[in-house]
Order: sequence, then C-alpha cells, then structure tokens
Amino acid sequence: MPNSTTPLEERKTVEVCYAPSHYSLYGNNFDVVVVIDVLRATSAITTALHTGVKEIIPVATVEEAIQYKKNGYIVAAERDGKVVEGFDFGNSPYAFMNPEMVGKSVVLTTTNGTKAIQTASEKTVIIACLNNLTVVCEYLIELDKNVLLLASGWKEKMNLEDTICAGAIADHLIETKKFTSNEDSTLAAKFIFRSARDNMYTFLRSSSHRRRLMQLKIQKDVKYCLMVDTVPCIPILKNGKLVLLENNES
Amino acid sequence: MPNSTTPLEERKTVEVCYAPSHYSLYGNNFDVVVVIDVLRATSAITTALHTGVKEIIPVATVEEAIQYKKNGYIVAAERDGKVVEGFDFGNSPYAFMNPEMVGKSVVLTTTNGTKAIQTASEKTVIIACLNNLTVVCEYLIELDKNVLLLASGWKEKMNLEDTICAGAIADHLIETKKFTSNEDSTLAAKFIFRSARDNMYTFLRSSSHRRRLMQLKIQKDVKYCLMVDTVPCIPILKNGKLVLLENNES
Repeated sequence: MPNSTTPLEERKTVEVCYAPSHYSLYGNNFDVVVVIDVLRATSAITTALHTGVKEIIPVATVEEAIQYKKNGYIVAAERDGKVVEGFDFGNSPYAFMNPEMVGKSVVLTTTNGTKAIQTASEKTVIIACLNNLTVVCEYLIELDKNVLLLASGWKEKMNLEDTICAGAIADHLIETKKFTSNEDSTLAAKFIFRSARDNMYTFLRSSSHRRRLMQLKIQKDVKYCLMVDTVPCIPILKNGKLVLLENNES
Repeated sequence: MPNSTTPLEERKTVEVCYAPSHYSLYGNNFDVVVVIDVLRATSAITTALHTGVKEIIPVATVEEAIQYKKNGYIVAAERDGKVVEGFDFGNSPYAFMNPEMVGKSVVLTTTNGTKAIQTASEKTVIIACLNNLTVVCEYLIELDKNVLLLASGWKEKMNLEDTICAGAIADHLIETKKFTSNEDSTLAAKFIFRSARDNMYTFLRSSSHRRRLMQLKIQKDVKYCLMVDTVPCIPILKNGKLVLLENNES
C-alpha cells in the first residue's frame, strides 16, 4: 500500500495567532501569512476583488486614508464598526458590489484588519475569510510552505469568528498530514472550529464582536460574512496592494 | 415562583485573559484577579500552603531569588520547566510536600506564574489550579465581585491547561446566573473546557506545554496537577506574600 503521509519532521507548520500584537511571539519561521478578519475586512476585500475592483490599497491610519481621498481615490474607512465621518464607505462587503468601482483602485482602512495586513507585510500575505475558505486551503496545500494564520481579532484580543476561520484552515491542512502544529493556540482554534462548524450563526450568537455589530444593525453583513465558499478567489498583497492571485501562481 | 436569577445588568463580570501581557487590555474594572498556572506554579503554591508552608514569596526574576537565597531563605526557582542551576527546588508540587518546609517562608520564581502574580499585584490576587477548583468557585460566588481569570500561559502565548481551568471557573460562575461575561476569550475558554472536561488528560496529550514537560520526564507532576479538587484551600496575596485564605474571610 503506498504511504501518502509525510513524516512528521518533514511536514510544514501551520499555526494560529489571535491578534496582530502577538505576531512577533510566533517567530520568523513562516513563508506565508494568511490574514483573517471575518467581520468584515477580509470578507469585504475578497468580495471587492471578485466583483472587479482592480486593487485594494490597505492603509493603517485614517490620516493616510484622508490623504488618498484628497488625491482623488475611492476610499473606504471603518472604525468601531462604523463608516468614519467624511468617507463614503466602511467595510460592508455590500458596499464593494458597486459597478462604479470595477477596474478602479480602492483605499481601505479598518479597525483591525488593515493593521494585521501591515504587521505581516514583509512576508507573502494572502487574505482569507469564510467566503473563500476552501480555495485558500487548496492553495496553501499546493504551495506547501510554513503558514501563519493571523487573526485580526478585536483591538488586540481574540475574537471567535476569526478563530473559527483560522481553526477551519488549520484543521483542513493538518488533516492532509502534510502539515503539523506545535502551538496550543492552534489546537484551541481547531477545537473551537469543530465545536462551531455545524451551526456557526448560533455559535456566534453570544460573541462579543457580533453583538457589537448587531447593535449597529448590520445583521445582513454578518450573515453574508458567515457564508462558506461563496466567493472563490484569493487576494494577495503585491507591492503594498491587494490584487487577485492568478490561477497559475504558486 | 421565586426568581433567584440576578438581572443581567446587575450581574458581576467574569473574564478570561490568556497571558500576563494582555492584562492591560482587560481594563481596570476588576476587584479580584485569579492567577492560574496549572503546570505547575499555582498547583505547587496551593499544595505548599496546604501542607503547612507558612508563606510563599513570589519573585519575578532569578536575580531576586538569588538575593533571598543569600539571606538564608528556602528558594525554589524554575525556568523552562527545569530547576534553575544553584537552586534546590523548581516548581514540582512534590518538592513542597516536605516536612522541613512546614512553618517556613519559601521564595518562588517561575517562568510564567510568578510574572502573572506580579502583574496583578495591585488587586486582590488569589491562586487557582485544578487542585482547588471548586473551593475557588465557591469563594468567588460568595464574594460577588468582578473577577478576572488571569492565565499565566506559556511565554505570553495561551496554553490549553490554563485555558481549561479558567474556562471551568468561568462556566461555573456564569451558570449561577450571578455572573456574566462580555469577552470572546471567555466564551472560547468555556467551549474549550466543555470539550475537555470528560477526559482532560487525553485532551491535553497534544498540548505543546505538556509535551514539553513530558520531555522533561515529569509525567507524575502532570498527573498530579490535572487532578480536580484534591487540595481544597485558597492561597491569597497579602503584603506581597501568598498565605492561606482563612475560612471567615470574604
């Protein structure tokens, strides 16, 4: 019988980091960083590129966003779940399903997600969410390199929805027996994903971040962001801009 | 029918923090901080006081520990799971079941646990582990104040065993309907505890910290530390020293 499993010592690693400020604790032994901000930055970015936006320029601060706006860019800015005053868009995925944005560059700053992207920008950065879960897993398996799953969290604390998404990817990769993990944060994320997978919406009912978003009356966005495999494409960071990964890249 | 539940807005809060460096993210709205380092500092401290050690003086650095040793104190020092060179004890609970320590002051420094104690020392600090789980829960319910469960983690990352212990306490307190939580870290700890509770030893088999300790051949200590309710007493920090909480204090 052919043995298709990779010996443990030859497997690539996949780990889960719960927030950008923990990033340095995970060392430098990663080739790819997968940034996750399910509610809503990475769901919005994936949706935007899939519907034809040319590129997303992620910026960490509102000040940078203002500068781009002055220079004529389409700029989306979100803080604490709301559109920042003076901007036309926040990070609702629906805002990016806009025919006027097709072919255009869009600048984006968000509370947690764009910070996570900048934190990891010296590495190969790809963008994941529940909407593109399976294509991201397939890409990482094909790529066969060490992976850090960087959850954006909520103001440097872990949040459930990013942990579930990271846990789903880690679980999938480890199940192939081509990847292994050494961190308890990864094991915990896997356990949480497995507890949650049959009914994510109910599971997240009591989640602090979701409750916060419910107060902002964006339940429609939340439902959109919790749909699995509805937007099968992968954003990748190139020269500081997020663009679609082409099929033949890996 | 009498209504014994406390209205949500009047309930005290209980939250779980995964590592000392996240402590400041949880704000200042806590009256009691419960420090948890299951493998092995808080299990050892609880055991030591229960078997008659007069007081434990927690110090954060090996340098401080050396100073105390020069001044004639019994000093225990652990780093990376091992006894520090030049000291007689590390943080094995068995080391503190020593008739020669009865009635004495013992100085202790450990990789994670004593750092967590110092982080919270401006609050009321009590010590929890699986060995004293139920008495800690009963005390906190009786006390009826806002509680932060501070896991010591492993070098500022979350670890499973402290998360399980914290999740067990949070679950117990929230089930009384006298406490509530707002943080996803607390929800996640509860889920992990509920996944783990029926077979903690198997659950932790793949935990990174436990694997690290297995390599150090202290499986006997690990089994001891995972026993629930075997050491029914509560250490409390008073004037920088850990002593037994008396029955009539609260």
